[in-house]
Amino acid sequence: MRENHSAVALPELGIGLIGTGFMGRAHALAFGNANAALELPARIRLAALADADSARAEHCAQTWGFDRSHADWQQLIHDPRVQIVAITTPNHLHFPMAMAAIAAGKAVYCEKPLAVSLAEADEMRCSAKTAGVVTKVGYNYQHNPMIGLAKDMIEAGELGDIVSFQGEFSEDFMANPASPWSWRCDAAHAGGALADLGSHLLGMARYLVGDVEAVCADCSTVHLQRPASPGSHEMRPIAVDDQTHALLRFSNGARGTFSSSWLKHGYKNHLSFEISGTLGTLAFDQERLNELRVYRAGASGRDGFQRLLAGPAQPGYAAFCPAPGHQLGYNELKALEVQALIQAVCGHSSRGPDFEEAWQIERLATAIRLAAAEQRWVALEDI
Amino acid sequence: MRENHSAVALPELGIGLIGTGFMGRAHALAFGNANAALELPARIRLAALADADSARAEHCAQTWGFDRSHADWQQLIHDPRVQIVAITTPNHLHFPMAMAAIAAGKAVYCEKPLAVSLAEADEMRCSAKTAGVVTKVGYNYQHNPMIGLAKDMIEAGELGDIVSFQGEFSEDFMANPASPWSWRCDAAHAGGALADLGSHLLGMARYLVGDVEAVCADCSTVHLQRPASPGSHEMRPIAVDDQTHALLRFSNGARGTFSSSWLKHGYKNHLSFEISGTLGTLAFDQERLNELRVYRAGASGRDGFQRLLAGPAQPGYAAFCPAPGHQLGYNELKALEVQALIQAVCGHSSRGPDFEEAWQIERLATAIRLAAAEQRWVALEDI
Amino acid sequence: MRENHSAVALPELGIGLIGTGFMGRAHALAFGNANAALELPARIRLAALADADSARAEHCAQTWGFDRSHADWQQLIHDPRVQIVAITTPNHLHFPMAMAAIAAGKAVYCEKPLAVSLAEADEMRCSAKTAGVVTKVGYNYQHNPMIGLAKDMIEAGELGDIVSFQGEFSEDFMANPASPWSWRCDAAHAGGALADLGSHLLGMARYLVGDVEAVCADCSTVHLQRPASPGSHEMRPIAVDDQTHALLRFSNGARGTFSSSWLKHGYKNHLSFEISGTLGTLAFDQERLNELRVYRAGASGRDGFQRLLAGPAQPGYAAFCPAPGHQLGYNELKALEVQALIQAVCGHSSRGPDFEEAWQIERLATAIRLAAAEQRWVALEDI
Amino acid sequence: MRENHSAVALPELGIGLIGTGFMGRAHALAFGNANAALELPARIRLAALADADSARAEHCAQTWGFDRSHADWQQLIHDPRVQIVAITTPNHLHFPMAMAAIAAGKAVYCEKPLAVSLAEADEMRCSAKTAGVVTKVGYNYQHNPMIGLAKDMIEAGELGDIVSFQGEFSEDFMANPASPWSWRCDAAHAGGALADLGSHLLGMARYLVGDVEAVCADCSTVHLQRPASPGSHEMRPIAVDDQTHALLRFSNGARGTFSSSWLKHGYKNHLSFEISGTLGTLAFDQERLNELRVYRAGASGRDGFQRLLAGPAQPGYAAFCPAPGHQLGYNELKALEVQALIQAVCGHSSRGPDFEEAWQIERLATAIRLAAAEQRWVALEDI
Repeated sequence: MRENHSAVALPELGIGLIGTGFMGRAHALAFGNANAALELPARIRLAALADADSARAEHCAQTWGFDRSHADWQQLIHDPRVQIVAITTPNHLHFPMAMAAIAAGKAVYCEKPLAVSLAEADEMRCSAKTAGVVTKVGYNYQHNPMIGLAKDMIEAGELGDIVSFQGEFSEDFMANPASPWSWRCDAAHAGGALADLGSHLLGMARYLVGDVEAVCADCSTVHLQRPASPGSHEMRPIAVDDQTHALLRFSNGARGTFSSSWLKHGYKNHLSFEISGTLGTLAFDQERLNELRVYRAGASGRDGFQRLLAGPAQPGYAAFCPAPGHQLGYNELKALEVQALIQAVCGHSSRGPDFEEAWQIERLATAIRLAAAEQRWVALEDI
Repeated sequence: MRENHSAVALPELGIGLIGTGFMGRAHALAFGNANAALELPARIRLAALADADSARAEHCAQTWGFDRSHADWQQLIHDPRVQIVAITTPNHLHFPMAMAAIAAGKAVYCEKPLAVSLAEADEMRCSAKTAGVVTKVGYNYQHNPMIGLAKDMIEAGELGDIVSFQGEFSEDFMANPASPWSWRCDAAHAGGALADLGSHLLGMARYLVGDVEAVCADCSTVHLQRPASPGSHEMRPIAVDDQTHALLRFSNGARGTFSSSWLKHGYKNHLSFEISGTLGTLAFDQERLNELRVYRAGASGRDGFQRLLAGPAQPGYAAFCPAPGHQLGYNELKALEVQALIQAVCGHSSRGPDFEEAWQIERLATAIRLAAAEQRWVALEDI
Repeated sequence: MRENHSAVALPELGIGLIGTGFMGRAHALAFGNANAALELPARIRLAALADADSARAEHCAQTWGFDRSHADWQQLIHDPRVQIVAITTPNHLHFPMAMAAIAAGKAVYCEKPLAVSLAEADEMRCSAKTAGVVTKVGYNYQHNPMIGLAKDMIEAGELGDIVSFQGEFSEDFMANPASPWSWRCDAAHAGGALADLGSHLLGMARYLVGDVEAVCADCSTVHLQRPASPGSHEMRPIAVDDQTHALLRFSNGARGTFSSSWLKHGYKNHLSFEISGTLGTLAFDQERLNELRVYRAGASGRDGFQRLLAGPAQPGYAAFCPAPGHQLGYNELKALEVQALIQAVCGHSSRGPDFEEAWQIERLATAIRLAAAEQRWVALEDI
Repeated sequence: MRENHSAVALPELGIGLIGTGFMGRAHALAFGNANAALELPARIRLAALADADSARAEHCAQTWGFDRSHADWQQLIHDPRVQIVAITTPNHLHFPMAMAAIAAGKAVYCEKPLAVSLAEADEMRCSAKTAGVVTKVGYNYQHNPMIGLAKDMIEAGELGDIVSFQGEFSEDFMANPASPWSWRCDAAHAGGALADLGSHLLGMARYLVGDVEAVCADCSTVHLQRPASPGSHEMRPIAVDDQTHALLRFSNGARGTFSSSWLKHGYKNHLSFEISGTLGTLAFDQERLNELRVYRAGASGRDGFQRLLAGPAQPGYAAFCPAPGHQLGYNELKALEVQALIQAVCGHSSRGPDFEEAWQIERLATAIRLAAAEQRWVALEDI
């Protein structure tokens, strides 16, 4: 019986989650899975859930196992049972919520993009640094154990000096010109394919290859107007990019290409890249997230890419499954992100972008946008 | 606040889980994910957890969120707060535990194989039927939304009359002759590649193609002895099959091949099959569980297999992710199995093997074993 | 100028080709490509071409570069300028033509299957042996450099002891029930999927794994009648197999499955197999004939199949292309078969089935047919 | 007998081939295969072969079936039995040979790149135009029937308006820094990855998508010096690009990325691209030259790329094989190029770059080089 037995004596960290959409639920699942499956230096307590719709807030709180709900996110931030504020609201709310949480001395776990302008992002990372609060940003794809394996291989020099990065993040959910306008089409809300999809790929490039020092780019809007709402005959003009292509020059000398598109038919979650060095090449595609294709010169005396399948040798995978080949899903990457968050809050080192790194990603996206607007190479140091 | 608001008024069903190994934790994750993400006719309450090691039982109960722990599984079965008994213990314990649960009028959620002998399995399915308790057996791969799509396509006649089934479930965890003896190598514990892996494939064949009426088969043991324990010099003789190959004749006229092996190098979870009919072919591989390859004659006027990616159009996927291409993992298939369990307990129809179907699977495996032993065709009606 | 220079002083071997259909032209292309690209111990001279239609014979002779044409194949066989008789006529003519060529002391290059009955095949191989003439049979897939690589790997022990063979040769050209009757549907002409397609796979199994000692099998005819001719309303009954599945027991202890079908939708030339041993696995699919997938345990410390691409390291490839990845086509496999033929005729050892081996393949197909007819295991020694 | 029969009454065109290296032999194979397998408006006569090494010239002439040999290529050009001059010598010789052939009024079949400078290429195309001689340039990949299918699909509007092109031609034959200097490393010989590989991809982009109006690019030399010869300790500086990345703006509004590299490990002939439009996407990789991956929105009501396999429905394939799935090889693409050449010489329309188009390709490569050198966007109209 619980009362007589106390094998588990971990500290508890109270999570306050703001938002009950797709990402809100993904967070809720991730907190539960992290508690049940992952080694954590503290136990997560689902302390509070906030949504402006109080009935929805309470319904979700009960369904997802939160202790209580708030209709006012400010209340949640100041709730003393909340040590970590998780933000899954639309992009333009990231700034006020994160700033309030920082002011309250709370750790912040914010979805990407960090903010709707580089200035806001800069203010957020500076405030967090000054306040000394721990931050983590939801670039969850970086927490894939196969990405961890790629990172380890690169750091161990298995690919030699990195020579090239070629990356693409394409989906097709806006391919149909009848796909209506939404906040994702609004530049003031960090809309567009570059912000929505491309920023994940920029983060991946930085994580695996390093700093970018200059970019040249081309943005294009293919469908110049879209229905104001589903099925509507009223059309709204579109100002954000449907697709962006860029050249990247990394500080370590590597060169590469970058593409992001939300109208490339056939792709559903095609965050993909190839990284090549003087000793080998590795390739990844999020649509097969449990695989990594690797070629190492001379490894076998015969030529050929090798398909590595995720297995318990990769940190993060073993926690969810002791046998190889069983595959993790998207939601488990989120749980691994939560593990990194809790490690960071407990003072341990952990992987994955914080506000500082998220600002660097925004800065790179800003450089790409400027390069496209002015049709010239832009040095990152000028941003 | 919770007290003033009651949007959620679902009945609760108390789960009593026996076992804390890999499958125990997989169950715990599945219950949590089902509650948080899936539409259920009742809410799951993690009422009790049993393990003979009481400290471990309590530790896991706390980690996984169960209300209490028991060292004695009989106590758990008779705990009035438990309505569903989930059994994840070694195979030879399935029978006594399930029989006790049935006697207590509890619903039973049992891992596969149902039992270590066909006679036991028969007794279990008869007892459950007589007692009128709901049962569900852990053939979780059948709950994959892509398998559901395959089932729907076949039922809708998209492949025409089914002509052939070719299936293989191969892994390589016993490929190394130094892999030691374990209960999986013991015929009395339903060991061997046919029982351990093959039964999943037999269930899939029955689910998608239908009854098998006759089989011919060949079992072989490649490594005739294995170390008694890891690294031991003491060798134990092995009597179970390392690999089994069979021919299947289905009642509907389809013919096919079947293979199961636990020593086929390179495969980690290769539950794979191709089903072909007079109008098309579909192919599946569990190592890419979010994909289905489909060929329909004349669909496009050009020839070619199509790779379908899991997405929200498939029931079960949408609950976990609103966007296609994000991929489910193994543990989410388990949550979908739990959803089917809860639906069944609440009197709704649901997919996935119950004790009756699990017995049919065992019966088919028994026919295969007999056909191999006697080197002749065996009709199912003689089993 | 030719007159003053004589770098090339190879003997010439005159080819007499019978037949001007698809395989006749494939032979003509192969002779030309072999002369131009492959190292040969003798130069091939296109001495004579025979077809019962004399105008067609002459037209093809000119188009393909043969010295002369014959309407009577007997004349061709006795033409003193012909040292090698190449037979590409319908199956039932292989016997009389080959027997006549053997009687005339000519080497014979015969398309598969060797004959329309095992008795004929037996007589052919005995006669060739007695006469001491060189023979080669058109199992051209075996001459693929990637198959040669597979053979070398197996012989070098890279896969360890062979444990399993799983093979399938499926196409879909008879999948449509409106596909009309042809001689391929006539048992007396060695029709049926087993004879037409399966024999290639049986040859491959024997080549790579070795003798088969027993088989069990199941043949089925899905479409019991077909139009007598394209578009005809007259239906002819079909007695040959549309698909055959079998279990194979090899003399070296390996076990396996075998399938051949000409109505499996989606496959166009799917001669495919996986061979697994105690140290690794290799996989091949003729639809990607320039690739071999290989898994070797522990090769890299990480798990994964490797995709090997054909390149100049493989004998046979280099002759056609000095750079890897450029790919050979079906017709070049035929040229490599011609090279093996010329090597054999010149007394060198060479790979690829002769009449003796082709008879062994027919014997194995006969055992499979008998096992299916009598629904029992059949030992090869009883055939 | 030939004397009495004259079914074939095609005119003959005498080929004079200069060069006996890899491409020389590839031409010889292609002429033979075109004669034997392809429908031609004239029969090809292998009239003469030239190589500065007269013994080699004569040896190859005999092996490949040419009527005579020349040590002096000028003699070959003026040989009255030669109507078409085929040039397979090193790049810097293309200009003088082609100009001499044009002056002699002969048709010219020249390997790519057309010349070692844009000025030379310009002079060649103007001279050919003025002289009215037929030309064809060896961009053989464009003659793949699957590329023809892609072209047909795009022209028929199956992809809608083209939105993006993403292409890459990577190999790894220079990946090893010990790979020695060769003329391919000499800018004066049109060396570098862009010229050697990239020009094929630029031709493909122009063929399938259309004119490019502006480019931005980045060239990099990773290995700044290489051994002067194999194994040598003497190092030579390298001035040409190891890899080039570029952004392309097409006149029709499509945007895209371009990469060429000869040091990307793992790739052997990775001429690959994806073309996406408002209705669908197609993808191609020369390492699987018999396949095309196609996605058409809404084609099936279900999402997924379709793998099309080459078959007799594609013009060019049927000539070599009447059954699908049997695959063409690299050398057969060359024979199809020869067919286009003979069609053009006989006044028929035919696909594939002539000198005019080859100059356009060089012009585009020149723009890319300039854009990289000056780190700015370059408009094609300024080249």
